[in-house]
Amino acid sequence: MIRGADALVVGGGLIGCTLAAELAARGLEVVVVERDEPGGEASGAAAGMLSPQTDASEPSPFFELALEGRDLYPEWSRVLREETGIDVGYRRIGLLRCFTERDPHAAGAAAAAAWQRARGLRVEQRSRADAQPGGVVERLAADVSAMLFFPDEAVVDPRRLTRAAWLSAERRGARVLTGVAVRRFRIERGACRGVDTDAGPIEARRVIDAAGAWAAFDERLPLPVPVEPVRGQIVEVRLAGRPLETVVSSEEVYLVPRPDGTTLLGSTMERVGFRKEVTAGAVARLLEGAERLLPEIASARFVTAWAGLRPATPDGWPLLGASPIDGLFFAAGHFRNGILLAPSTARHVADLLTGRPSERRLSPFSVERFAGLPSRA
Amino acid sequence: MIRGADALVVGGGLIGCTLAAELAARGLEVVVVERDEPGGEASGAAAGMLSPQTDASEPSPFFELALEGRDLYPEWSRVLREETGIDVGYRRIGLLRCFTERDPHAAGAAAAAAWQRARGLRVEQRSRADAQPGGVVERLAADVSAMLFFPDEAVVDPRRLTRAAWLSAERRGARVLTGVAVRRFRIERGACRGVDTDAGPIEARRVIDAAGAWAAFDERLPLPVPVEPVRGQIVEVRLAGRPLETVVSSEEVYLVPRPDGTTLLGSTMERVGFRKEVTAGAVARLLEGAERLLPEIASARFVTAWAGLRPATPDGWPLLGASPIDGLFFAAGHFRNGILLAPSTARHVADLLTGRPSERRLSPFSVERFAGLPSRA
Repeated sequence: MIRGADALVVGGGLIGCTLAAELAARGLEVVVVERDEPGGEASGAAAGMLSPQTDASEPSPFFELALEGRDLYPEWSRVLREETGIDVGYRRIGLLRCFTERDPHAAGAAAAAAWQRARGLRVEQRSRADAQPGGVVERLAADVSAMLFFPDEAVVDPRRLTRAAWLSAERRGARVLTGVAVRRFRIERGACRGVDTDAGPIEARRVIDAAGAWAAFDERLPLPVPVEPVRGQIVEVRLAGRPLETVVSSEEVYLVPRPDGTTLLGSTMERVGFRKEVTAGAVARLLEGAERLLPEIASARFVTAWAGLRPATPDGWPLLGASPIDGLFFAAGHFRNGILLAPSTARHVADLLTGRPSERRLSPFSVERFAGLPSRA
Repeated sequence: MIRGADALVVGGGLIGCTLAAELAARGLEVVVVERDEPGGEASGAAAGMLSPQTDASEPSPFFELALEGRDLYPEWSRVLREETGIDVGYRRIGLLRCFTERDPHAAGAAAAAAWQRARGLRVEQRSRADAQPGGVVERLAADVSAMLFFPDEAVVDPRRLTRAAWLSAERRGARVLTGVAVRRFRIERGACRGVDTDAGPIEARRVIDAAGAWAAFDERLPLPVPVEPVRGQIVEVRLAGRPLETVVSSEEVYLVPRPDGTTLLGSTMERVGFRKEVTAGAVARLLEGAERLLPEIASARFVTAWAGLRPATPDGWPLLGASPIDGLFFAAGHFRNGILLAPSTARHVADLLTGRPSERRLSPFSVERFAGLPSRA
């Protein structure tokens, strides 16, 4: 039995561990319950792109939260390295979005580049004519006819990062219980006061659901949590030539160079429930799409493939902040952006929990925006 | 130092171990030298199809040797099971060769079916109209317009088989030295009398080169051995539906159901030297080809992929029997048919080595058929 924790974080993925570290740094007594081990699910399966600009079609509170996440990374990486000794592989290598004549997103991307530049962000038009000798542009398929380069997009190694966030939380005094599953949320007189686990009850003044794709907890939470798993598959290859100097993407696929010299090809979006298997069809489509963008993929060494379950909400934005149940909070539903949003999520949810004024309102990410959704039976 | 062996087999793959077991059964003192472990190379990488009919375009001594191999399997499997306790997975499940309107091999296959039937072999025309409900034909792609079924083709598990052949050789008294590499062949006065290894010299009255793709031994053999590696890649998947009841193949790919419920997709033919890596392009082509034949492949679970090096000769037939060097023999160059040809190879090479009259002449497989080839510098 654990009594009197200030905060109990349910789910020890990157979001949970980062939040726990932040809360512990602010002096709270924090417990994290993780049924497996940090990084065992989506956090460890991500490709590690920090690319808010590439994915943004319009300005929004989500875009600002994502940009803030990206901006926090250099300093956060430095702190994690100091605290844990782990180099989380943060590198601002940029992202080259490639378009063929057939790509239906070319016009939208040009419009996005315009408002992003007006917002003070860097987006560069690239052409094959001014390709650097030996650079990535020369290696692209012949039908890539236009490119946008986002020099401030970055990458990080999600597995190292999750491990570092876990260690950081522990070094700062949080207790991270691994291999412990939640059986029940303790709701007393309409307020959440802890959980029962297979290792006994844990009492806490605040409970934060950071359980990723599992945040809805089947029937174990007495409110609808609109989070569902969306499978994403990734193939890892090793190019015969030298590693790419930047992330490269098309409408079909992205290619992320890793610090160890391999390249990740991602990803799929599949609503297949909690099934994490790698499928032959996805591997084939990722390899084909990558080969259409970078022909030398055909001779790349196939290393491995895996799948993860993204926690998707109906609008693709995360669930952050208070819930209708007193004492229960959300730091969940990060969908494709859990890595990117981890530091800004931790900051603002911690502000909320510690009563500090936050420079960013969490209301756009409140579960109440889904109030019109049908509740579960 | 090992002295006075009757036979030294260089290479402990399936061919080497099977030959060693056969020679030991005939009372010879046999030593096998294997630089890795039996099954570590092509023997363990094969898909395990025993399909002489499917691949035969015309009658030939090779076809007869292959048929004999297939015919020996039921009894050989029984003996191996008795001797070693290992079920080698032999199953006569047949092979369904599928043709689309575009398949350029359809006419040739029909002609092959005709002469094979005249030879007394079974080949059955199948049509979509008489498909069994729930059977494999119903699962095929819509553009499969014609089929030939070879009911006597079979499969075996090459890894279990190689392990069983290894154990059988040892049980019969052969010494199988693993992790021992050959440094030099001992040629004295024009005769081969053993090898020097990194574990010391081994003297033997007869030396049999059964080293698969490595049979040419770089500069270590003083004669040209026309064997080269041809890479073959295989993808293993697990179908969501029930396993296939027969091997299925198209002009692009074959699908082999395994006893453990997975399916192997093979294979490529690549002349890339001694490079065993799995490539992204091959994985993509195998998956695409399999999906074109059996659409449900798209949702199959991707398990793994691997590559092996087939020992190819210029004409695709093996190198069997005596060499120009006294005391040196070949049991090599089995290319795509090492599993199938192992029992017939062992029988006839053992006949030659023990002075028995063999019912099959090995001259079509002699190295001398390549006498006109340019010798190495």
